[in-house]
Amino acid sequence: MAITLYELVGRDAARPFSPHCWKVRLALRHKGLDFQSATAGFTEIPGLEGGCSKIVPILRDGETLVAASFAIAEYLEETYPNRPSLFGGEGGRALSRFVESWSQRTIHPALARFAVLDIHDVLGEPDQAYFRESREKAFGTTLESFVADRADRVEPLLKSLEPLRAIVARQPFLGGDGPLFADYIVFGGFQWARVSSPFQFLPAEDPVALWFERCLALYDGEGAKVPAAA
Amino acid sequence: MAITLYELVGRDAARPFSPHCWKVRLALRHKGLDFQSATAGFTEIPGLEGGCSKIVPILRDGETLVAASFAIAEYLEETYPNRPSLFGGEGGRALSRFVESWSQRTIHPALARFAVLDIHDVLGEPDQAYFRESREKAFGTTLESFVADRADRVEPLLKSLEPLRAIVARQPFLGGDGPLFADYIVFGGFQWARVSSPFQFLPAEDPVALWFERCLALYDGEGAKVPAAA
Repeated sequence: MAITLYELVGRDAARPFSPHCWKVRLALRHKGLDFQSATAGFTEIPGLEGGCSKIVPILRDGETLVAASFAIAEYLEETYPNRPSLFGGEGGRALSRFVESWSQRTIHPALARFAVLDIHDVLGEPDQAYFRESREKAFGTTLESFVADRADRVEPLLKSLEPLRAIVARQPFLGGDGPLFADYIVFGGFQWARVSSPFQFLPAEDPVALWFERCLALYDGEGAKVPAAA
Repeated sequence: MAITLYELVGRDAARPFSPHCWKVRLALRHKGLDFQSATAGFTEIPGLEGGCSKIVPILRDGETLVAASFAIAEYLEETYPNRPSLFGGEGGRALSRFVESWSQRTIHPALARFAVLDIHDVLGEPDQAYFRESREKAFGTTLESFVADRADRVEPLLKSLEPLRAIVARQPFLGGDGPLFADYIVFGGFQWARVSSPFQFLPAEDPVALWFERCLALYDGEGAKVPAAA
């Protein structure tokens, strides 16, 4: 069966940047599954696959459609149980939700304050208007002012990464010697920033940066194939 | 084989308060293992079991001695594999380390600023002197000044609990429908504060408070048997 992953892009269809799509991209490679990528801008998402979802990633696997990264990971785990596990058992699946919850509430809001204007700038024109309006409404301020003090926000982010740093300083991945979906969850956030924004915030010698490099190198450099924003 | 759990207490041997000992107490109940408790004050720990460890918990299981809560959980999981799992598989074991890392760096430092003077006050005399000296050296200030502004620190703690809150608001435990060692890891911190300090900081309707109540009720109210500090 053919697998299609619908991913979010801006003007350059070769630069998918959604953190949640990156989680699934690595999950598919983890499972050793071939897939084709189909890309869409923000305003094209509601028209994908008959309007099945308001968000990407959407995965089509033969006749099956699944939306949202965690649900897709669970689908892949259940459907392809004989391939390398994304969760390492039921306990790993449950605690991956905690990693997601932490990542969503610690890393993502901070990275948004670094990258949101840069993300706007790489979008196609109809997406730019949609993105600016929806985000400025959510943030209660302009994109420009939302990122204006980003340099001052680096240190608090680096401090908030300590629970992750302490783990990846002593072992290669959150999963241990090898990565699990939990690694891809956190990787997705950093890759989102890397692909969409040239703003640098991770010191090269930070154990988190070294872990991120290990993630970028996985599966023949799947993550590294898209160059960092310049 | 007889199992002994060495736990930390103050003047009242019926009120073990170490977060790490509570993790193991619930882990033993989770596994359905009988055990006896042996108690020690801070300054008695180096003399336990021939000086095998500088920290409690220490577990003796027949001829085997294991120290430190996570190592004990791993030992129990390996030694009693046919009893309910503490990790739910290898992935769960790995990600429990992340939960521990988060709990140690988010919850514990905040709770120490609430409870450290109250902890001092429940200790026996030689322990009080050791505790004050070692902690004041570590904190760089007196115990009294370390907790002086604790009321102002409640709101930042409550905010930092959001990754946990989001999970336990939608399911009973971090482990899902039932608890895993990851739940006991976080429970230990809150139980430490509950047993040692009357300072209230969790609103009763907070999903974290409701989760904590569920943990207190586990195994015939193992955690609730020790009344809250008053």
